[in-house]
Amino acid sequence: MTMVIGGASAASLAAALTEAAQDIDEALDQLLPVVEGDEARLFEAMRYSTIGGGKRMRGFLVLEGAKQFGVSRSAALRVASAIEMMHAYSLIHDDLPAMDNDDLRRGKPTSHKAFDEATAILAGDSLQCHAFTVLADEATHPDPAVRIELVRMLARAAGPRGMCGGQMLDIMAEQAAEPLDEPAIGRLQLLKTGKLIEFSAEAGAVLGKAAAAQRHALAAYGRDLGAAFQIADDLLDATASTEAMGKATAKDADAGKATLVGLLGIERARMQAERLVAQARDHIEIFGERADLLRALADYVIERRS
Amino acid sequence: MTMVIGGASAASLAAALTEAAQDIDEALDQLLPVVEGDEARLFEAMRYSTIGGGKRMRGFLVLEGAKQFGVSRSAALRVASAIEMMHAYSLIHDDLPAMDNDDLRRGKPTSHKAFDEATAILAGDSLQCHAFTVLADEATHPDPAVRIELVRMLARAAGPRGMCGGQMLDIMAEQAAEPLDEPAIGRLQLLKTGKLIEFSAEAGAVLGKAAAAQRHALAAYGRDLGAAFQIADDLLDATASTEAMGKATAKDADAGKATLVGLLGIERARMQAERLVAQARDHIEIFGERADLLRALADYVIERRS
Repeated sequence: MTMVIGGASAASLAAALTEAAQDIDEALDQLLPVVEGDEARLFEAMRYSTIGGGKRMRGFLVLEGAKQFGVSRSAALRVASAIEMMHAYSLIHDDLPAMDNDDLRRGKPTSHKAFDEATAILAGDSLQCHAFTVLADEATHPDPAVRIELVRMLARAAGPRGMCGGQMLDIMAEQAAEPLDEPAIGRLQLLKTGKLIEFSAEAGAVLGKAAAAQRHALAAYGRDLGAAFQIADDLLDATASTEAMGKATAKDADAGKATLVGLLGIERARMQAERLVAQARDHIEIFGERADLLRALADYVIERRS
Repeated sequence: MTMVIGGASAASLAAALTEAAQDIDEALDQLLPVVEGDEARLFEAMRYSTIGGGKRMRGFLVLEGAKQFGVSRSAALRVASAIEMMHAYSLIHDDLPAMDNDDLRRGKPTSHKAFDEATAILAGDSLQCHAFTVLADEATHPDPAVRIELVRMLARAAGPRGMCGGQMLDIMAEQAAEPLDEPAIGRLQLLKTGKLIEFSAEAGAVLGKAAAAQRHALAAYGRDLGAAFQIADDLLDATASTEAMGKATAKDADAGKATLVGLLGIERARMQAERLVAQARDHIEIFGERADLLRALADYVIERRS
C-alpha cells in the first residue's frame, strides 16, 4: 500500500523530485558550459560541485512555487539553477579545511579534495557570482523589476545577515565557552540554512507577480519548512550512518556543535519538527490541491532517512 | 611649478582622489554598519578590509564617469562602494594561504592574519554578496532596468569569465611548465583586473542612461586604463620598495609569475603602458573638459610611485 500524504502520495513526490532534479541538472549543464583552454579547470570545478548531486530541495521549491502561478518552466528552472549554484558555493566553502574540513560531500570527495584549495575557493566565488548573472539575464523574466527583486532577495538571503552571517555564528558557537540556548540556535539555523530555503519558496511568487498574501504565504511556508528541515538534518546526523548520508555523520556531537537535538533530546526535537511541518502546511492552505506536492515535501523532510 | 596634465593639474587630481576616497569611506561606513552581538565579528572583518585603505581608483572612476551625465553624488557613491566591496573581497581571497599567501595588504595585516582564515573567507563571501545588495537597492537608482543592468555587468565582470577566471589563469600560469606569451598575459590581466576597471568606468554611463556611444567610450577608456594600470603595477613590483607599496614587492619575479615586464623588459613595458594611456585619453575626447580628471588619472596610473 502506498502511503498517502495530504493528497499527494510519497511515490508521486518522489517522482516529482526526480524529475525536478533531472531538469535542474540539464539547466545547470547549459548554464555552466564545458569550456576549452585554461579556464576549463574553473568551470570543471563549478560543474563538479553543482551538477548531479543533492536532493535539489531548494530548486524543487522554486519550481513548485512557480507552478502555483503558471510561471513558465524554463524561467523557473533558471531561478532554481541560481539557488542551487548558491547552495553549492556555500557547501564548497563550508567544506574547506579552514571551515568544517570535510572530505566527503554527496558521496564523493569535496571540491578541495578533488581539485585543490585555491580552485575550490575560486569555484565557490564564481558560483555565487554566476547565480546573480543567471538571475539578471533577460531570459529569467522580461520585467527588470522582477529580476532585480530576485537579486535583492537572494543577495540578502546569502549575505552577512543571511547565510554568511549564520555560518559566522556557527563558527563562533564552536569556539564559545557556553553552549547556545534554544533561541540562539534557532536564529543561527534561520540564518545559515533557513534564509535560502525561504527565498526558494518565495521566488516562484515573485516570478509570477503574485499578490502579497500569496507571496507571504509561500515565504512563511519556506521559513517553517527550513526550520523543520534543519532539525531533521540534526536528527539524521545523530542517528543515521555515514553510508546512508553520503557525508560524515555524528560530526555535530563530536565537534560539540550546538543543535536543538542536543539541547532538547531526540524525542522533543522530533515533536518540534512535526509542529513546524504542520504550521508550514497551514500557511499554504490557500493554494488548495495545487500545493499538494509542497505539503508532501513538508512531510517528507522529517521522514527522510538520508 | 605644478605639472599640468591635459588641463587638470596633478594637484587637482590628488585633491579629487582624496575627496573621493573620503566620500567613499563615509558611504562604506553607512553600508557596512557596526553591529552588536555575535555577527559583530563578520561585519568587523568586512569593514577592516574595505574601509580606509587603497587609492579607490575604481570608486573614483565611477564617480567621475557619473559626473559626465549629472548623476547624483549619492547614487554614484553607492555604486562606487559596491565596486570597492567587490575589489576588497577579491583581495581578501587572493591573499589567503591557499592562494597568494600574503601577510601584508595596504600596509596592515591581511584579513586572515588579523582575524583567521574562516573569518576571512566569510568576509570575502559576504562582501561579494553585499555589493549586489547595494546595487539592487532602490536608493541606487529609481529605475529597476538601470539597477539590473549594473548587477548584470558586475556579475559578469567578477565571475568565471571575468575576475575569477583571471585569477584561475594566474594560478595555473604559476604551475605551468611553459611561461605565458604576450597575448596570454594580456588576456589574464584583462580578466583578472581589467574587467572590474572597465565596469567602474562604464557604470556612471549606465546610471546616467547615457547614449550607447558615450557608454562605449567610457568602457573603452576603462579597458585601456586597466591594461596600463596592470603594467604599471608590474613595473612598481619590479622596481619599488615594500615600504612604498604597503605590500610585499618583487614577489612576481620570485614566484616566477608571468608579467609583461618580465617578457618585454622594463623599457618596452613602460612604452606599451604609455601607448595605452594615450589610447585611453583618445576614447574620452568626446567629453571635453569635463573629463579632465579622467585624463589626469590615466597619466597618473603610469607615473605613480606607490
